[in-house]
Amino acid sequence: MPRRLKFTISYDGTEYHGWQVQPGLATIQGTLEEVLSQIEGTRVDVVGSGRTDAGVHALAQVAAATLHNPIPTMNLRKAMNRLLPRDIRVLEVREAAADFHPRFQAVAKTYEYRIYREEICPPFERRYVHHHPYPLDERAFCEAASLYEGTHDFTAFAAADEKDSLGATKARTIFSSTARREGARLVYRVRGSGFLKHMVRNLVGGLLEAGKGNLTLQDLAALLRNPAARKLGYAVPACGLFLIGVEYE
Amino acid sequence: MPRRLKFTISYDGTEYHGWQVQPGLATIQGTLEEVLSQIEGTRVDVVGSGRTDAGVHALAQVAAATLHNPIPTMNLRKAMNRLLPRDIRVLEVREAAADFHPRFQAVAKTYEYRIYREEICPPFERRYVHHHPYPLDERAFCEAASLYEGTHDFTAFAAADEKDSLGATKARTIFSSTARREGARLVYRVRGSGFLKHMVRNLVGGLLEAGKGNLTLQDLAALLRNPAARKLGYAVPACGLFLIGVEYE
Repeated sequence: MPRRLKFTISYDGTEYHGWQVQPGLATIQGTLEEVLSQIEGTRVDVVGSGRTDAGVHALAQVAAATLHNPIPTMNLRKAMNRLLPRDIRVLEVREAAADFHPRFQAVAKTYEYRIYREEICPPFERRYVHHHPYPLDERAFCEAASLYEGTHDFTAFAAADEKDSLGATKARTIFSSTARREGARLVYRVRGSGFLKHMVRNLVGGLLEAGKGNLTLQDLAALLRNPAARKLGYAVPACGLFLIGVEYE
Repeated sequence: MPRRLKFTISYDGTEYHGWQVQPGLATIQGTLEEVLSQIEGTRVDVVGSGRTDAGVHALAQVAAATLHNPIPTMNLRKAMNRLLPRDIRVLEVREAAADFHPRFQAVAKTYEYRIYREEICPPFERRYVHHHPYPLDERAFCEAASLYEGTHDFTAFAAADEKDSLGATKARTIFSSTARREGARLVYRVRGSGFLKHMVRNLVGGLLEAGKGNLTLQDLAALLRNPAARKLGYAVPACGLFLIGVEYE
């Protein structure tokens, strides 16, 4: 009997060319497929809740695969973690509905972006933050964050080569968008119905421009109202970005 | 005029073959010498407070060098951090006495060893902890830690190839030796007059053996009283070890 399984996965994306399989390159999806295929004894496909770019991390990415192997979920988790490199960990394996699809059925995703504000970035943080020690109006940065909340056409915040596989619309709903200081870090957290390619990094880029005084709140609001006018093109480095979690009904 | 300079340095030791220069291998000392030589325009030697092994980290290692370049210390720090890889950071540069020697003049050093106790080690922690999720009597581990305090002959806790450059004695004074749980981590901290090669890792190895029930407190005490009897040989992995600081008069 085929079993549909839901995997919750954490990874340090530093050494990977992103989530999606690419021939000859180390990717998260490719590494998971290798390990599951080894356990299953035949080729296994893994579907994720969405792609993460090269260098982006995940506290709890969600993926699914169909296996015939009757191994109990806890043992499967242990077997996977024994075979996986230490920068990818399976946190949980659960039985799922036969039609479970991590991308189409996701109702919300949360991302976090971490900016390290002090002059010297500790060596132990460097893989997990964007180091930006330069002058910044953090109050303007935090105030601008709430502008993104609501349903907007985020074309201006998408990658130039964004292709919207869900149809023509680039409208997305942002449920919450907030930023605050946590020690040496300025942390931006956004929860939304879905995100376009590079969207979170462009959202952060917009906030940084607001904090630098290069964009006013009105400028940012105009990008949401008149998205076709231009691409923002301020994507910040991948290393500060974490997929925090994916929600389902 | 030659200037003696004191450097406080933090590094992620994961990618390095330890502190000491080795031909053809990346080391902390070698990397610092390259960068300082580049700034000075001629070969500069760097002396550290002591060697750290391959993979060992430092929150605040101390080193010294003599330069003729009159560059202000703050600018020198910035120039070094621009040239150094991001896993080595110069935290501070200060003018020092002409005869300042980071090893001979050190009066105390503090090390910390971090053991990750939960079943799944987060990808973001893996480079900075020893993952030991197995059963352990942590109370016995913590109780045993205080045994090391005082002045003892630590021969039984030294590397097999330890050569004591300070003379024949392998006596060292441990000012404090404590362990406690901090969230998912069991953290051992030791402050002493000096440490033999591999000594901290063998001290931790002894505590782990106590926690596993393989050594009693009496067994550990006997190793301190009768050091020549045998080598402990329980050195734990380097990745959990941090040099926390070096003290001077």
